[in-house]
Amino acid sequence: MSRAVNVAIIGAGLVGSAFINSLQSLRLSSITYNVILIARSSKALVSKQYAPLSLKTWSSDLAAATSSSALSPGDLAAYLEKSPLPVILVDNTSNEALARVYPIFLQQGVSIATPNKKAFSSELGLWTAIFKASANLTGDPKRGLVYHESTVGAGLPVISTLKDLVATGDEIVKIEGIVSGTLSYIFNEFSTVGEEEVKKFSDVVLKAKELGYTEPDPREDLNGLDVARKLTILARLSGLDVQSATSFPVQSLIPSALESVENVSEFLTKLPEYDAETEKLRRDAAADGKVLRFVGKVDLSAGVSEPVRVGIEKYDGSHPFASLKGSDNVIAFYTKRYGKNPLIVQGAGAGAEVTAMGVLADVIKIAERIAK
Amino acid sequence: MSRAVNVAIIGAGLVGSAFINSLQSLRLSSITYNVILIARSSKALVSKQYAPLSLKTWSSDLAAATSSSALSPGDLAAYLEKSPLPVILVDNTSNEALARVYPIFLQQGVSIATPNKKAFSSELGLWTAIFKASANLTGDPKRGLVYHESTVGAGLPVISTLKDLVATGDEIVKIEGIVSGTLSYIFNEFSTVGEEEVKKFSDVVLKAKELGYTEPDPREDLNGLDVARKLTILARLSGLDVQSATSFPVQSLIPSALESVENVSEFLTKLPEYDAETEKLRRDAAADGKVLRFVGKVDLSAGVSEPVRVGIEKYDGSHPFASLKGSDNVIAFYTKRYGKNPLIVQGAGAGAEVTAMGVLADVIKIAERIAK
Repeated sequence: MSRAVNVAIIGAGLVGSAFINSLQSLRLSSITYNVILIARSSKALVSKQYAPLSLKTWSSDLAAATSSSALSPGDLAAYLEKSPLPVILVDNTSNEALARVYPIFLQQGVSIATPNKKAFSSELGLWTAIFKASANLTGDPKRGLVYHESTVGAGLPVISTLKDLVATGDEIVKIEGIVSGTLSYIFNEFSTVGEEEVKKFSDVVLKAKELGYTEPDPREDLNGLDVARKLTILARLSGLDVQSATSFPVQSLIPSALESVENVSEFLTKLPEYDAETEKLRRDAAADGKVLRFVGKVDLSAGVSEPVRVGIEKYDGSHPFASLKGSDNVIAFYTKRYGKNPLIVQGAGAGAEVTAMGVLADVIKIAERIAK
Repeated sequence: MSRAVNVAIIGAGLVGSAFINSLQSLRLSSITYNVILIARSSKALVSKQYAPLSLKTWSSDLAAATSSSALSPGDLAAYLEKSPLPVILVDNTSNEALARVYPIFLQQGVSIATPNKKAFSSELGLWTAIFKASANLTGDPKRGLVYHESTVGAGLPVISTLKDLVATGDEIVKIEGIVSGTLSYIFNEFSTVGEEEVKKFSDVVLKAKELGYTEPDPREDLNGLDVARKLTILARLSGLDVQSATSFPVQSLIPSALESVENVSEFLTKLPEYDAETEKLRRDAAADGKVLRFVGKVDLSAGVSEPVRVGIEKYDGSHPFASLKGSDNVIAFYTKRYGKNPLIVQGAGAGAEVTAMGVLADVIKIAERIAK
């Protein structure tokens, strides 16, 4: 009676490890999940006869594997093609090269669950190739399914909610969101409602780095590209043919004079010289009772010249975005059916645990559809 | 290549009509949905040979049907059993008798999508019977699936989010929510952060009735039972064996002296006599900078004597529940993975359109799993 799927896991870093741990704490499942492959870029554990690997010792087993075990995407495709059970490929990397071969996996019937934004926010051609190769739209049972909840807001129900709204015939009017945990934290600290204590923008960036909220090079957060990638995904799901994550206006928080600075510490040393600019913005907003937030918008209202844009926006102190806490994300869907008040989803939108949870929830949904 | 399911729709009131309209505006679907039956309590349209009914003329066709066409649950089961395609029964009623035969439908392989709270918030035995008869937990492909997103918060992703959290092994610490649109509106109007204008509780109830936000007899909202039914569902999904919607403390907003008043207009005439009580509560809260909200709670923290309870609670002006607007619902999930800040879902949680949307999204998810 019990059904089963085979699961191949690529990426064994923070998210990958959290995913494997969560997989062992699955509840109320009538489906058996057999992990047949765990790989990182340099090495791999592969079950030759497609028997389940031991999840108790995977970490030391993988550490003990030699570099000759590393798999190319071609090796991987050849291996998965012969799986006797339906396969779910779990890509827990942010590897663009792997994302580019998704169409090949999907075409040969391998399903994919992933938080890898690169697959869905690179040029439009890749997006189209992925979904044309999948069973999502064609319904062709010989093709694989692709689920990617954790590409925006980690485990928060963002992608699934947007897909449900669109699929059931609602009309998206506007989507507005704070979708970078790092920039959420920075602006929640920098521009508060009460304004008891005035903080310098550069100090807040430094503190965010110390707390581990930023990338090792904080410019990778401050350039807005992570937010732009997420907005590309939301806009495409809303029906817009967005060419790429750089084809719409994205405000960078890196002072232009510091864009070419080579190392991180020099950048951080010089950043305070530009505090006057952000301070003026903050003060002007506060004078109107408003706070600053770094926001992405998809606006499909008639007459909007730039339907997708990313940058600093001002919000009244009573607006839900103004009272956001910590590094939380928030996404507001304004639709025809929901009317004046948006459907809002809010909570932790970054972190290995909640990202892995979103991926695992996708794996369960795929398995419910394909397990044999 | 194209797959199909048969759909049988019970209930053709506001939600039922909105559902049928939405079904015709389905987008990006590779699955064909054939409506083979549309029924209300007194009459039914039935496709004898299981060919799709015309959705263009369903309303007048149903109106023209004679009362001899009405179906008993037994007739319905016999008809659906012979369907050549997998069947989804869409129960858009709040009929308890129909809910009681869900196990029979599920056992014979009919899947169910429904906003009918009675099925999931009556005695625990019915809940157990429904899920034991379903394929949800057993995975038995000969059984039907049951989805009920719209039983709490209408189309808001509440049930699906809670199920994902539990299934992926997260631990629910607390769920707190404003899940009655009517009581949301009444308290949002009655107890505001600024308190510019003091309103009488009875006046706000009257206004809510005039706006069509209450049941024809507002006591059906004020008794708290609708909220208690929804909390029963949330608590059971969180793992608590709640016996029924009356087996935990539920605060009624009906003054006890008015409980036995027979007609609605007499009740509304006498309600102002009890405004002093609610006014004192409101004023005491305001003195602490707090507002009143009518809330349901599932609290699984250690040492809590009543893990499920429903009633008036006080919240700081800066709490997300304090700034709720109109008749919006809000549900906060506190879990081990999400930590200090909850996962929050907010937006319209009542109304035919958004309720039907939640049912339709469920129908799509079932069809993706069972269509042939």
